[in-house]
Amino acid sequence: MKVWNTLERDPTFQRPKKVPDSDEMKRLAAIQLHKYCHYNFLHPDTAKLPYKRKTKFMMTVNEALAVAFPDVSIKHAVGIGLFKNALSTLGTERHQHFVDASWNNQVLACLALTEIAHGSNTKQMRTTATYDEKTQEFIINTPDFKAAKCWVGNLGKTCTVAVLFAQLYTKGHCHGLHAFVVPVRDPNTLLPYPGLIIGDMGEKIGLHGIDNGFILFKDYRIPRENLLNRTADVTPDGEYESSFSEPGKILGAALESLSTGRVGIMQESSNNLICAVTIAIRYAAIRKQFGPNGDGGNTKNEWPLIEYQLHRWRLFPHMAAAAILRTFVTSFTDTYLSAVELSTTSKEFQNLSDVVSEVHAIVSSAKALVTWSCRDAIQECREACGGHAFMKASRLGDLRTTNDPCVTYEGDNNVLLQQTSNWLLRQWQNLTQGNKLTTPLGSCKFLENHRFISSQTFRVVESKTLTSQKFISECYEWLIVYLLKQTDSKQSEIERRTNKFVARAESQVYCAALLSKVYIEYLALNYFWAKVCAADSTLINTLNNLGALYGLSSLEKHLVYFYQGSFTNNSNFSKMIKDTILFLCDILKPEALGIIDGMAPPDFVVNSVIGRSDGKLYENLEAELMHGLSVMSRPDWWREIVINNPPDFMRHRSKL
Amino acid sequence: MKVWNTLERDPTFQRPKKVPDSDEMKRLAAIQLHKYCHYNFLHPDTAKLPYKRKTKFMMTVNEALAVAFPDVSIKHAVGIGLFKNALSTLGTERHQHFVDASWNNQVLACLALTEIAHGSNTKQMRTTATYDEKTQEFIINTPDFKAAKCWVGNLGKTCTVAVLFAQLYTKGHCHGLHAFVVPVRDPNTLLPYPGLIIGDMGEKIGLHGIDNGFILFKDYRIPRENLLNRTADVTPDGEYESSFSEPGKILGAALESLSTGRVGIMQESSNNLICAVTIAIRYAAIRKQFGPNGDGGNTKNEWPLIEYQLHRWRLFPHMAAAAILRTFVTSFTDTYLSAVELSTTSKEFQNLSDVVSEVHAIVSSAKALVTWSCRDAIQECREACGGHAFMKASRLGDLRTTNDPCVTYEGDNNVLLQQTSNWLLRQWQNLTQGNKLTTPLGSCKFLENHRFISSQTFRVVESKTLTSQKFISECYEWLIVYLLKQTDSKQSEIERRTNKFVARAESQVYCAALLSKVYIEYLALNYFWAKVCAADSTLINTLNNLGALYGLSSLEKHLVYFYQGSFTNNSNFSKMIKDTILFLCDILKPEALGIIDGMAPPDFVVNSVIGRSDGKLYENLEAELMHGLSVMSRPDWWREIVINNPPDFMRHRSKL
Repeated sequence: MKVWNTLERDPTFQRPKKVPDSDEMKRLAAIQLHKYCHYNFLHPDTAKLPYKRKTKFMMTVNEALAVAFPDVSIKHAVGIGLFKNALSTLGTERHQHFVDASWNNQVLACLALTEIAHGSNTKQMRTTATYDEKTQEFIINTPDFKAAKCWVGNLGKTCTVAVLFAQLYTKGHCHGLHAFVVPVRDPNTLLPYPGLIIGDMGEKIGLHGIDNGFILFKDYRIPRENLLNRTADVTPDGEYESSFSEPGKILGAALESLSTGRVGIMQESSNNLICAVTIAIRYAAIRKQFGPNGDGGNTKNEWPLIEYQLHRWRLFPHMAAAAILRTFVTSFTDTYLSAVELSTTSKEFQNLSDVVSEVHAIVSSAKALVTWSCRDAIQECREACGGHAFMKASRLGDLRTTNDPCVTYEGDNNVLLQQTSNWLLRQWQNLTQGNKLTTPLGSCKFLENHRFISSQTFRVVESKTLTSQKFISECYEWLIVYLLKQTDSKQSEIERRTNKFVARAESQVYCAALLSKVYIEYLALNYFWAKVCAADSTLINTLNNLGALYGLSSLEKHLVYFYQGSFTNNSNFSKMIKDTILFLCDILKPEALGIIDGMAPPDFVVNSVIGRSDGKLYENLEAELMHGLSVMSRPDWWREIVINNPPDFMRHRSKL
Repeated sequence: MKVWNTLERDPTFQRPKKVPDSDEMKRLAAIQLHKYCHYNFLHPDTAKLPYKRKTKFMMTVNEALAVAFPDVSIKHAVGIGLFKNALSTLGTERHQHFVDASWNNQVLACLALTEIAHGSNTKQMRTTATYDEKTQEFIINTPDFKAAKCWVGNLGKTCTVAVLFAQLYTKGHCHGLHAFVVPVRDPNTLLPYPGLIIGDMGEKIGLHGIDNGFILFKDYRIPRENLLNRTADVTPDGEYESSFSEPGKILGAALESLSTGRVGIMQESSNNLICAVTIAIRYAAIRKQFGPNGDGGNTKNEWPLIEYQLHRWRLFPHMAAAAILRTFVTSFTDTYLSAVELSTTSKEFQNLSDVVSEVHAIVSSAKALVTWSCRDAIQECREACGGHAFMKASRLGDLRTTNDPCVTYEGDNNVLLQQTSNWLLRQWQNLTQGNKLTTPLGSCKFLENHRFISSQTFRVVESKTLTSQKFISECYEWLIVYLLKQTDSKQSEIERRTNKFVARAESQVYCAALLSKVYIEYLALNYFWAKVCAADSTLINTLNNLGALYGLSSLEKHLVYFYQGSFTNNSNFSKMIKDTILFLCDILKPEALGIIDGMAPPDFVVNSVIGRSDGKLYENLEAELMHGLSVMSRPDWWREIVINNPPDFMRHRSKL
């Protein structure tokens, strides 16, 4: 609230009436970033807090910024937050002055990893950093345009330094991908240094305020000390030395560098999801269309959209998703930060390694689940608000373009899902080989009962028991075990004929990819249910209904597998679940606006002319339309399009 | 090709390097429209052609324009095409001079129907046109802002005349919604006339070149003759006279005014769908990622994306949809135009009325199917092309925003689906009451066998028979009959308790809305299969595989209904269909680029840097990035963001 209230009072953060061109948007975002940094929400004292408290505080501040000003948030995260992280976790004390400068807002950075021809497969990066003993420098080179670093946020126009990932060569040997701090622009002039070609990626689909850039290196030299040497170093005379003395810290570092960005994306996407459903449900409560006597001229009997079963069914599952995923992300962030903190103190290497693996498995699929759920919700909300949602001022278009790249960056969702299924399959093999599960966080502990779970079938029940946690859990656990078995046997069968790579590739569809999705849906629900227990008793009923709606409407997408896997052959199973979904949409109707008001940020942040909390839809629309720029003025270029000698009857000749 | 080649050679139609602001985009679109009109692709002689040939010719020219320059096409369609249509079908010879002026490009018009608080429910429109006998004029009034006409294309800045829909009042009686020709701007100055408030809708999500506007009337007078009086007129002394002397023509007019816009949208969406899959499949053929030896530094073993089963499964069903829906739309357009032509000659009123109803039922759900299929394909293609698709030059973002409003305008898709299900339910009631079907176009003729169809169940078959037209037809026909029965009994049950309105509203989800979707998917396939028979024998195999992939991957979404409705309780049914989908994706792999090249427009039209036909993905990307505007220049505003007194270590100090 402090961040939001501060920005709302600052003219720099008022949205311009006229949509600026992308150059001006970049200027605005850069200036807003400066202003934001000057507010010192992250005062340098924050650096002294214990890790978990510090990081949670920083994440919260970032969330507040991101939901209102996503471009500024990403510029900040990349240019300051992730830069500090990278230096702290990959660098050593010899890079501390960069970290300090970052806390003091004296440097804007970028992270250069992706290359033109390689995104997800980081091991194939082709940029090289070759050590030159004579000068004790690394010489950086880009072999060709396909290896140019690209999509680097802040690099296009504004940053001065990069964390660069390149293949490290010493004495003719390649030691794999390493990170380097690389100055790229003179901080006094913002001109690139000789030896670099830096360009802007040009016009994008969205996030126009971010200057994504590309860079090519030609014999560009940096000092030896610029290697981030937490895990390996190069001596002045060119010996490569890896330092595996602190395995815990290495794991923690690996975890953080892999996961922090993804956790941030989950937070941002879950907030955007809340904004989207806020807009659509407030609109649905006011907007009327047809009604029992709709054929006459009488408008009094028109129904608000929310009165229509179809409309509730289109929106309420997304509202439930917003509640469940938001709770899951908040709660899991705690788990995640504890795991990272543990890595700095724990002596139990094996357990720590298991924690890191499980967190990675969860974050990978959770990032996919949350960003895709947000994508689907935004699109349904856009359509559910009809034509007025096509106004930029509805915000739904900007929400869509803001969330869109989240399904791709920091790991393509489809690639990430494989990380989760690989981990789950390892767990499964542990079990079937008589070993123990390694699930220190307990996310798949129920697999211990897999024999019992597999033997379960659908028993005809009263329809009200379908909303229970017990029923939904039984369904999810059965489905996860079923998909594990299917995937495992399909992979084994293909691997016998080919190899592990092909086996994995050919078992994603209907098996491994689905397994990961179902696992994470269920885990999200479990995190939600754990919080519901602690909620105020007056809220528990509604929260349980939201959980049930999320669970059943998610299960509905996988319903056929319960027949395919012989959980049931009862034709009523499908029908009962569908009827229960409709029932839940009905009983949540009187609560919907309350649920929304409980989740929604202030109007300044939601920033939608059709989704304000005052319910004055048409008054707000009128003000927005009337006060726009050049709304009623003739365009300057009218002479260019006027039709010469229009026929006389085209002129208006009223008799009065 | 003539349109495309002409525009490709004209500098006016080259895409600007810098994305202009929305005012400049409106100017560009207006100027391109003038230029386009001057090319006289629709020479006034076209007007003399017989209806069907003339309209098909105009539609083809519009399709060519729309896929390359959607804004110009919409401005043209609204401002010239639909204006002519409205005057021809709703007006009489006293409006012929407007039609002639339109053919001669002497007038740009708009169609004002939607009001701020009423979109879909046209009967609730509140703008009034009250006849004043004393002056023989209509006085037009907007009661309040909620009744302002809005989203009117061309009205914001450029048009001079409107076709206005308003409630007609004479002698204190309301006679319902009627259409009027209303001059709104002086054609010599482009200034609005007194009595009007005209504004621009402001910034939108997309289609920035179109000046959508709103208008309020205050005692604005137009001559009596401006009433479009094909179906009803007002005499000079204020008598309201409806003229139902030519019922066939009225029906034809109703059909055209309802459906032409929707047919046009189907055409445009099916072309956009082709563009999207063209981009993604060409990209997938070149772009490499991981591979069996992906862990080493060897890039030679990396797989192109198209080699991944998951990637094929994500894209190929959309490729099949592009082929099937494109064929369906082309072929159905013929049927549609014949029906309209019939309306001008036929004496058989009853049959004609049945044709009109069936065409309306088909168009309503077909518009929903095609626009939603295009939406889903574009999003999947965007994600399948990863980060590079986030460049504006990929075109996928523009395709998304161009298609987005198509699911809303000319009838919201969800509202339209009800038109189809209502018609299907009437047919079902005909049958169950022992009457005949009224399906002159035969789209639901198979329902005559409903008893046999209902009795069908899944017989275990060889998996290769699952790709046959016979199997897919049996599944679809069973499903349609099942959903008809479910919807009919649910509606009857609810209607007994409440009323017809409530019964319809409460039977959309899982019943009526789904029924309409399934019916139109099956019809699209039937139109496709009818064309396959006539294809070159060397193509038939591939075309059948495309048809089967479309059929099975569409059926897959409804698979659980086959268990719910007891078509089968065999757990293998679902698995066999899924395996067959994967099999079809495999065998279509070697054909995919050929199929795409067979459907894709020229590169100038597809207009995507990552989807060119030359396969030179990275060369094209390099040229695009390097030749962009201000790619490598320091921004003018660099002084505003430079950090004062950066620490000395931020400066680059290479030792050489």
